[in-house]
Amino acid sequence: MAPFRSHPFDDDKLKEECGIFGVIGVADASNFVALGLHALQHRGQEAGGIVSYHPDHGFNSARRFGYVRDNFTKPEVMDTLPGSLSIGHVRYSTAGSKGATAIRDVQPFFGEFSMGGCAIAHNGNLTNAAALRRELIERGSIFQSSSDSECIIHLMARSIQKTLSERIKDALRRVEGAFSVVAMTRTKLIGVRDPLGVRPLVMGRLGDSGWALSSETCALDIIGAEFVREIEPGEMVVIEGNKVDSTRPFAPAKPRFCIFENVYFSRPDSIIGGRSVYETRRQIGVELARETPVEADLVCPVPDSGTPAAIGYSQESGIPYAMGIIRNQYMGRTFIEPTDHIRNMGVRLKLNVNRALIKGKRVILVDDSVVRGTTSRKIKDMILEAGAAEVHFRIASPPTAWPCFYGVDTPERSKLLAATMSEDEMRDWIGVDSLKFISLDGLYRAAGEAAGRDAANPKFCDACFSGDYPVAPSDKIEEGFQMKAAE
Amino acid sequence: MAPFRSHPFDDDKLKEECGIFGVIGVADASNFVALGLHALQHRGQEAGGIVSYHPDHGFNSARRFGYVRDNFTKPEVMDTLPGSLSIGHVRYSTAGSKGATAIRDVQPFFGEFSMGGCAIAHNGNLTNAAALRRELIERGSIFQSSSDSECIIHLMARSIQKTLSERIKDALRRVEGAFSVVAMTRTKLIGVRDPLGVRPLVMGRLGDSGWALSSETCALDIIGAEFVREIEPGEMVVIEGNKVDSTRPFAPAKPRFCIFENVYFSRPDSIIGGRSVYETRRQIGVELARETPVEADLVCPVPDSGTPAAIGYSQESGIPYAMGIIRNQYMGRTFIEPTDHIRNMGVRLKLNVNRALIKGKRVILVDDSVVRGTTSRKIKDMILEAGAAEVHFRIASPPTAWPCFYGVDTPERSKLLAATMSEDEMRDWIGVDSLKFISLDGLYRAAGEAAGRDAANPKFCDACFSGDYPVAPSDKIEEGFQMKAAE
Amino acid sequence: MAPFRSHPFDDDKLKEECGIFGVIGVADASNFVALGLHALQHRGQEAGGIVSYHPDHGFNSARRFGYVRDNFTKPEVMDTLPGSLSIGHVRYSTAGSKGATAIRDVQPFFGEFSMGGCAIAHNGNLTNAAALRRELIERGSIFQSSSDSECIIHLMARSIQKTLSERIKDALRRVEGAFSVVAMTRTKLIGVRDPLGVRPLVMGRLGDSGWALSSETCALDIIGAEFVREIEPGEMVVIEGNKVDSTRPFAPAKPRFCIFENVYFSRPDSIIGGRSVYETRRQIGVELARETPVEADLVCPVPDSGTPAAIGYSQESGIPYAMGIIRNQYMGRTFIEPTDHIRNMGVRLKLNVNRALIKGKRVILVDDSVVRGTTSRKIKDMILEAGAAEVHFRIASPPTAWPCFYGVDTPERSKLLAATMSEDEMRDWIGVDSLKFISLDGLYRAAGEAAGRDAANPKFCDACFSGDYPVAPSDKIEEGFQMKAAE
Amino acid sequence: MAPFRSHPFDDDKLKEECGIFGVIGVADASNFVALGLHALQHRGQEAGGIVSYHPDHGFNSARRFGYVRDNFTKPEVMDTLPGSLSIGHVRYSTAGSKGATAIRDVQPFFGEFSMGGCAIAHNGNLTNAAALRRELIERGSIFQSSSDSECIIHLMARSIQKTLSERIKDALRRVEGAFSVVAMTRTKLIGVRDPLGVRPLVMGRLGDSGWALSSETCALDIIGAEFVREIEPGEMVVIEGNKVDSTRPFAPAKPRFCIFENVYFSRPDSIIGGRSVYETRRQIGVELARETPVEADLVCPVPDSGTPAAIGYSQESGIPYAMGIIRNQYMGRTFIEPTDHIRNMGVRLKLNVNRALIKGKRVILVDDSVVRGTTSRKIKDMILEAGAAEVHFRIASPPTAWPCFYGVDTPERSKLLAATMSEDEMRDWIGVDSLKFISLDGLYRAAGEAAGRDAANPKFCDACFSGDYPVAPSDKIEEGFQMKAAE
Repeated sequence: MAPFRSHPFDDDKLKEECGIFGVIGVADASNFVALGLHALQHRGQEAGGIVSYHPDHGFNSARRFGYVRDNFTKPEVMDTLPGSLSIGHVRYSTAGSKGATAIRDVQPFFGEFSMGGCAIAHNGNLTNAAALRRELIERGSIFQSSSDSECIIHLMARSIQKTLSERIKDALRRVEGAFSVVAMTRTKLIGVRDPLGVRPLVMGRLGDSGWALSSETCALDIIGAEFVREIEPGEMVVIEGNKVDSTRPFAPAKPRFCIFENVYFSRPDSIIGGRSVYETRRQIGVELARETPVEADLVCPVPDSGTPAAIGYSQESGIPYAMGIIRNQYMGRTFIEPTDHIRNMGVRLKLNVNRALIKGKRVILVDDSVVRGTTSRKIKDMILEAGAAEVHFRIASPPTAWPCFYGVDTPERSKLLAATMSEDEMRDWIGVDSLKFISLDGLYRAAGEAAGRDAANPKFCDACFSGDYPVAPSDKIEEGFQMKAAE
Repeated sequence: MAPFRSHPFDDDKLKEECGIFGVIGVADASNFVALGLHALQHRGQEAGGIVSYHPDHGFNSARRFGYVRDNFTKPEVMDTLPGSLSIGHVRYSTAGSKGATAIRDVQPFFGEFSMGGCAIAHNGNLTNAAALRRELIERGSIFQSSSDSECIIHLMARSIQKTLSERIKDALRRVEGAFSVVAMTRTKLIGVRDPLGVRPLVMGRLGDSGWALSSETCALDIIGAEFVREIEPGEMVVIEGNKVDSTRPFAPAKPRFCIFENVYFSRPDSIIGGRSVYETRRQIGVELARETPVEADLVCPVPDSGTPAAIGYSQESGIPYAMGIIRNQYMGRTFIEPTDHIRNMGVRLKLNVNRALIKGKRVILVDDSVVRGTTSRKIKDMILEAGAAEVHFRIASPPTAWPCFYGVDTPERSKLLAATMSEDEMRDWIGVDSLKFISLDGLYRAAGEAAGRDAANPKFCDACFSGDYPVAPSDKIEEGFQMKAAE
Repeated sequence: MAPFRSHPFDDDKLKEECGIFGVIGVADASNFVALGLHALQHRGQEAGGIVSYHPDHGFNSARRFGYVRDNFTKPEVMDTLPGSLSIGHVRYSTAGSKGATAIRDVQPFFGEFSMGGCAIAHNGNLTNAAALRRELIERGSIFQSSSDSECIIHLMARSIQKTLSERIKDALRRVEGAFSVVAMTRTKLIGVRDPLGVRPLVMGRLGDSGWALSSETCALDIIGAEFVREIEPGEMVVIEGNKVDSTRPFAPAKPRFCIFENVYFSRPDSIIGGRSVYETRRQIGVELARETPVEADLVCPVPDSGTPAAIGYSQESGIPYAMGIIRNQYMGRTFIEPTDHIRNMGVRLKLNVNRALIKGKRVILVDDSVVRGTTSRKIKDMILEAGAAEVHFRIASPPTAWPCFYGVDTPERSKLLAATMSEDEMRDWIGVDSLKFISLDGLYRAAGEAAGRDAANPKFCDACFSGDYPVAPSDKIEEGFQMKAAE
Repeated sequence: MAPFRSHPFDDDKLKEECGIFGVIGVADASNFVALGLHALQHRGQEAGGIVSYHPDHGFNSARRFGYVRDNFTKPEVMDTLPGSLSIGHVRYSTAGSKGATAIRDVQPFFGEFSMGGCAIAHNGNLTNAAALRRELIERGSIFQSSSDSECIIHLMARSIQKTLSERIKDALRRVEGAFSVVAMTRTKLIGVRDPLGVRPLVMGRLGDSGWALSSETCALDIIGAEFVREIEPGEMVVIEGNKVDSTRPFAPAKPRFCIFENVYFSRPDSIIGGRSVYETRRQIGVELARETPVEADLVCPVPDSGTPAAIGYSQESGIPYAMGIIRNQYMGRTFIEPTDHIRNMGVRLKLNVNRALIKGKRVILVDDSVVRGTTSRKIKDMILEAGAAEVHFRIASPPTAWPCFYGVDTPERSKLLAATMSEDEMRDWIGVDSLKFISLDGLYRAAGEAAGRDAANPKFCDACFSGDYPVAPSDKIEEGFQMKAAE
């Protein structure tokens, strides 16, 4: 099973925009970073970059479009990245920027300062970047990319602090929004999380001498590093040799970790808040079965992301679990869409229904979320064409009705099915016998909050479901975005 | 889920050597062949080839190393393959031959005869090819490849028959062993299965005017073709326009279909003998649970091929099913093995244990087969390192103790764990608390033979388990292979 | 200066179709073959192939489209070609065949016989190949290429001789036309020239232990081999160890070496018949100046092939030599033709006139030949546009009025300017003040025949000028080609 | 003939570091820039870049390693560069910087300012760049490249001027050294030459609406543009629509154009100071024959750069001109150096001697310059090995005894043969019968200064010969470079 975040209809999914990874204290650190980024590939599949530092060779970097495995395994690339200190980044390129110059937008970003070089990789999104960028250009900064994250480097260049660590603090105090940052100087590996801790960041021990920072624990596993702890919201760690220095550069705040990391973004074998992500997802299925029961013959996941919740639904409901939809595992992003002539023949490139199994059955399909809804319609068509008697959709998250501004690629609000339709209207539009979502309280329970969501003090950022944005999206508001009216 | 035949430790699996596909009667037939081969990629991942015929452009071919999706989707390749008649082939290159000349070994093979051209794609293995090749060279034939399948073309060239169809019959009557063949002339699509029907071949209807031949039904699904029927053992079909002509060129024989297609080779969404392969595999799990019960907390598949049997085992035993091992879905064949330095850190490139789930649990691991056993040891190490209390292996096939000579890449006999050890010895060598295989009778029951295996008249070829070879491997015997002593 | 055969308007030149090279008796023989082919690149720029033999690794081959320097210098290619015996070939692909399958047409060809393998590389053209091919296919041979040269391998396979050398003789006695052949078995390097010796072939000594066979002496120079002698017309040499065995397999005939090798095909630093090709070409310029004097200010070559004759013309006439036309040396075959929009601006991709030099001058332009005449018109336009007062073309060969059927790519007869126009008509069509060709007698004198051409017993093949074909082009006659009427 | 600046032993030549080109006022301007850069390829072969601007698509850029013809002819590259305003650059990468990040060093550089974007391409070298860079970094600029030219963009960003043209002036007033600059804003094409006019820059008219700026006139020819005039030393032109605005931003100075452009860098079909470069070089040969006569049988150029001077030497001396050394025109930079084993056989990859011509002759070899002298030795060896009776070197420039700091890649002083040896010592070290250089006065005469060099007011920059640096190389002096002692 390969139950990660990839999905046969990727264009109808929310997309995490980045994964970050850093290593200090072991020879050939960039090789570990490559492995770590490979394990984080589900967080960003369009491009990746690695920077390393070696006393004899200085800072070196390589940035490439495509998968980590296709770029950062070649000797001609890796041999240019020597040293025992290295950081890296995987990303989605946002719509439209994958053109001739976009390689400039691939992180880590690098700056040469009078006290030495510094590379930075950023996961998240700055909500005041447009305003900062305008100000910096007016003061004489030359931007090399269209990425908002580059602001951090220029803010550092303008800082009057004497050390790079202090300049990072200075810079991050100026930015707003969600950010987990991994940075490196010639001697230090640095990790920071924003005050709300929206995006994840964890620390691991690598052998006797090394340390790693990673978006998720699964990337510690791949390099054989031991998971030590999460970097806390608002914390900055500076690692040099065997010393880990922790400070709190920001004003204190109540944490609001992204709940969608539990639903879909993170890998099922990662650990968040001390719990297996797989187990949280299975528990979502259990909650879903309790909240939205239905009589049926089979519970089938929409592969691969619906699998853990489908297992939980089956176990709670007693309805047998089955692989009703099979995914072509050799599917790559490079397969050209067939011509109309061929498509009209009924080609099914990505998924195939296990028709001998489905025929005449009442089928419950468990999927992780509904974004535009277009995928759900296609899957329903396939299942009915194969002769299913009934089709019931069960969704492992509440209706996605609001865009995310904290580092996730969401369609604009008008494209979100749940922003314009009620649950019944969605059911009819998709064309299934029933469609049910888990409640927000149910989701909180599955994520370990036995009492459900405390509206006065919610533990997670759930803005995509609730419209409750913990940091005001100021750039977007300036562009005209309408916040949810106060209730 | 992507529960096909791929496996994170592919070097410890039996490998099907080929998939074949052909289409007649639709525009751009080669595009359909490319899609069909893509759906058959699990049968051969090293190389592929497509031949097409167009009245204005004659026969054209393209042969490439690598995945179908990476080669046969490019316009610069597909535009060279016009016409409404096309066949194709995917294959493994056998050990050592993937060098400068090996592209010559990639099928389909092509021959120009006085009555026109003919292309042939072959799935299976000829057991008298070495002797035939010697004879043909002595009579003046020039071989272009090291492939035994090329004999068929030269036997056709020597035939005195007036039509290509008759020459194919002439040639195939001379060969021994296992073969499913798809061939094409300028006007006809031809399919043949050997008298025992060891390898599969099915026929489908494509729209109103077209026909397809395929190794498996899942490749009919991808192009929207309707599954019509299997080509029968010993049958030859010649398709031209809307006419399907069926003949029986060979002496009658009792069919012996390869039982390992049910266990591992075929895709779970294919239909064999009227049954879903997925359902057969789930039933194997059910039989396995009945034959080899054990007390435990979790039933976990070894991904991806153990999944259906694990589901069946869980359902029969009542022990919860869980994803205890997670596969990195971005794993490609191109990831370079880490250096020793890095490996010693404990790198786990391909699989990761869901440690929060496994810790302290008694785990049943369900895998499809044990070949060399090296993989089983590595998986056991990972599970124990993650803190499992007990590890019980349950294998969805009997011990693999004999090599296959009918188109499957098996290690030589001395490398097969079950050829040199008893079940208890294997358990100790792998180092698990228990190791149990399904019985041959149990496997036959799961495959639909309620009475189990009839030793006097077995329905399947099960030589890899039983040493009972339905066709004498004459080339191998000449090389010194020892058959099983008569009992 | 780079005065080889390349020419900025290659599509208006006759094209030699092949160069061949072989080496025996030195380690890494294929590396020497690669260097030799590089020095013969002017004889065939579209594709190349090398075969080598090593006792431990057998025969290996690599065939590629493109330049030798781009393919046969890569370790991943050359490492697959071990051994101390190797042959190679460079070629033009003839019109239309550079498609998906054309790599099959790249020589050397290889055949596996009962007494071992044999590889063959052929320069020239067989005039009875079509008839031979028909016969061989009817008897059961499978052709793998569209190349006529493949007939030789199949004729060998049908031979009843016991040794490969004897089978080569058998095969070559059946073919007609022009051929220089280099072949290799597991132990022998073999060279053969047809009875008329139309195409060149020379032998060289490589260190103490090695031998080389080459189309031209310039390729011996590049590997530091000493030029020993030409293989004689009708001779076959078989080299093994230090023994060179010479035989005469064919009926005796009067030699007819291709005179165009002197005019254009061979490199100026090669030696033919004991004379420097450069010196012959300079002497052509001297004869041309004597035969076709004109008053002018400058003698300018059309670069690069007209250079030696222009030097000779200048020296004989006393008119200063000057570089009036400059060629862009970075010109590659890959530069895309400009769009009409850009072309209409007057773009000159390949040549540029040295306008400050040309303006107001009476210019003699010396070119090697006139084929279609299209190039001559373009050059005339450029020179006049730059302000030349007069333009006089002097051509270093007689009018090209007949196609070559002996291994040169010529347009069909109706496309040859001299086949349809008188000299005066050509002058007017090109639009220059005068146009003069060297006489056939003058060309023979420059090539060392003081008495000019002996019509009863001409020393050279000059069919392209005279229509006197020394071997009847039987395949072409069957297709309808009209020979020159007897006079 | 291809008599440009390339040379078979490029590592023993001074190297021009850049060529620049810009176009305004025609559709698809970047296509013209690609053609212009192709014609300037001899000025920089390692990498190239093009920027274009289109009102709908903004600024776009493409930067690539390798030849223009291989990169900027592909539709997938050129289609990303729309618009009627475009500039480009070709360059050598200086030693050691061609690593993973060096594509950042490829110009044009681009900056986004509050009043819009600006791209800049620079030919030359700034002698105070290191000091400027230190200062800018301290003030908060982030450098993206290791190129000194990037200073210009950051100086512009710090300027308080309101328009980009004024900011360019501001920036260039701060830099010292040699520079010809082509820049573009959204509406303007801008050209500037430093006060001494060390590097060339010319202007051309392209059709009715367009203008071009180019390093040399030969690149105007290729696009069919009419040569209008040179940009004058110290001049800045701003072109918008049909208006060409000329200003003089710098303090007046006496021009010192680089005399080596006449000797070697510029193409022979370019026009400098109203004279054909070819004619100047031929005249150098004439002067050389007068100054350094010797009895001999042949005058041979060292191809290709010695050709025009060899023609002049022959014409003045009456000794016949001949092609004694032939260059392999298919030589590319990609041919791997042969192994020692092969080299010891005497391989000659790049040049071949026309031995039948040379044997027994007294040969004058004309080369453009002597830098390290290693090439001269190799050529002498080849000529003697071919049996020449005497070898006389004649050099078309004075002894190169000082490095250039104005945009030419010269070895450090200790590596220059003429810096450490007298003419006689050089003759003996190279091992020839005589070695003579043209005098500095002779060179000035050939370049049009009938009276030779006026030491009080030299017309050219001739620092590489004289040690007389017109601009103090301040960064180098800070590093320890010793200027010539005052005489």
